[in-house]
Amino acid sequence: MIYTLPKGSYSEKAAKEFLKFLDGEYEIGYCNNIYEIFEKIDRSSLGVVPIENSIEGSVSLTLDLLLEFDVKILAEISLDIHHCLIGYDKEKIKIILSHPQALAQCRKYIKKHGWEVKAVESTIKAVELIEDERYGAIADRDVVKYYKHLKILDENIEDYKNNKTRFILIGYKKVKFKKEFKKYKTSIIFELKEDKPGALYHVLKEFAERGINLTRIESRPSKRRLGTYIFYIDYENGLEVLNSVKKHTTFIKVLGRYPVLVE
Amino acid sequence: MIYTLPKGSYSEKAAKEFLKFLDGEYEIGYCNNIYEIFEKIDRSSLGVVPIENSIEGSVSLTLDLLLEFDVKILAEISLDIHHCLIGYDKEKIKIILSHPQALAQCRKYIKKHGWEVKAVESTIKAVELIEDERYGAIADRDVVKYYKHLKILDENIEDYKNNKTRFILIGYKKVKFKKEFKKYKTSIIFELKEDKPGALYHVLKEFAERGINLTRIESRPSKRRLGTYIFYIDYENGLEVLNSVKKHTTFIKVLGRYPVLVE
Repeated sequence: MIYTLPKGSYSEKAAKEFLKFLDGEYEIGYCNNIYEIFEKIDRSSLGVVPIENSIEGSVSLTLDLLLEFDVKILAEISLDIHHCLIGYDKEKIKIILSHPQALAQCRKYIKKHGWEVKAVESTIKAVELIEDERYGAIADRDVVKYYKHLKILDENIEDYKNNKTRFILIGYKKVKFKKEFKKYKTSIIFELKEDKPGALYHVLKEFAERGINLTRIESRPSKRRLGTYIFYIDYENGLEVLNSVKKHTTFIKVLGRYPVLVE
Repeated sequence: MIYTLPKGSYSEKAAKEFLKFLDGEYEIGYCNNIYEIFEKIDRSSLGVVPIENSIEGSVSLTLDLLLEFDVKILAEISLDIHHCLIGYDKEKIKIILSHPQALAQCRKYIKKHGWEVKAVESTIKAVELIEDERYGAIADRDVVKYYKHLKILDENIEDYKNNKTRFILIGYKKVKFKKEFKKYKTSIIFELKEDKPGALYHVLKEFAERGINLTRIESRPSKRRLGTYIFYIDYENGLEVLNSVKKHTTFIKVLGRYPVLVE
């Protein structure tokens, strides 16, 4: 089983992309939220969740759960996110529904039409709430496969065209892929030994000196000790820098070394 | 007017805290979501939104909107977040409702009681959806002021005790405070000139060499150019490092230099 968000969600789309590359048969299991996905995964199943620039759930929730659960990141994939206007008749729309992040990503488009905006918990929920012609929803084009009474009224309505979301495949056991991938990333979480100027700088120096490219860095308040921060870092290729980073930390967790899946 | 999230939300609580320190009279205006707050603020009004470790909306949304709108950060305040169990009768609860982040923060507590979990868009929405004794919600203790038929059934039910959320006061015009504050922060957003190993390290070096403490760092995919990242950095005190940082960037925006409000 591979658990992900509801039918028609961008995460489901990502799960289907992962399935193209995965060696083995998996059925898709639908969950209501990211938290439920983490809870359901066991040693024989996998999960797909958004981790960056998500429109379906807060990235910070995924990061918190990666810290809390012992699950590993097994692969990542990036999807282009194109929003569509879904409904009955564009001319008759008065109220536009979607997830707050999707509404934000189509702000200029919505403003141009002068529609009233209503935020709901997910893009799928928005589609479900289309009662009649007065309502429109912002969601992925694939939702019309499941809600056949609705139509795609407009495409690529996002304000910025480089709208990508990173999704990760997570699980407790290693998986096999049908092909080899060239690019690998490692994701780590750590807490710095000293909370003083330059502490993070000394860690980044370890990466810079080895010519290792950081692809992402984020700090979040630590739940372990007040006033301290934990850092999430993604970097390209090897694990060979880890021992040097460890010197500067009180705590370090390797979330995984995994391939970046591309066609 | 000072715009914030609905009555009973943690953001409303933060708005009330800001009001204690603000010189001048402001009425609270309630919005349905973070996006609406940014839209409503004009030169004579203010807004209060969560920016870090939020349970009410994705932090990434606030960061995106700070980049998009020209609004400045005028002050920050941190609140301890304590979750309560709200409902009619603890013994009769079967289903627990809340925002996914709040549910995640009380995971162990919920598990102990074996309740079914249902995620909704906000903690307030959860309280509104309590139909009968079978339902419980996780929210702030203050919600019972507005929903007088409900009771606080349990307090401080969060799994980790150091549960803080940072809120920011935003607006287009400077405001005056009733007292002087000692600690100041500056928040900046920038894009690096070169996307290669060590690029960020050179920026952090500028801070480290001046003994300036970074209180937060975050990278997010840039919407301006594919494959590039923008960085959000908060640092203590002065602006004097800015010119040196500028050398390494293609784009820099100062979100504000502002006091950290404490009693």
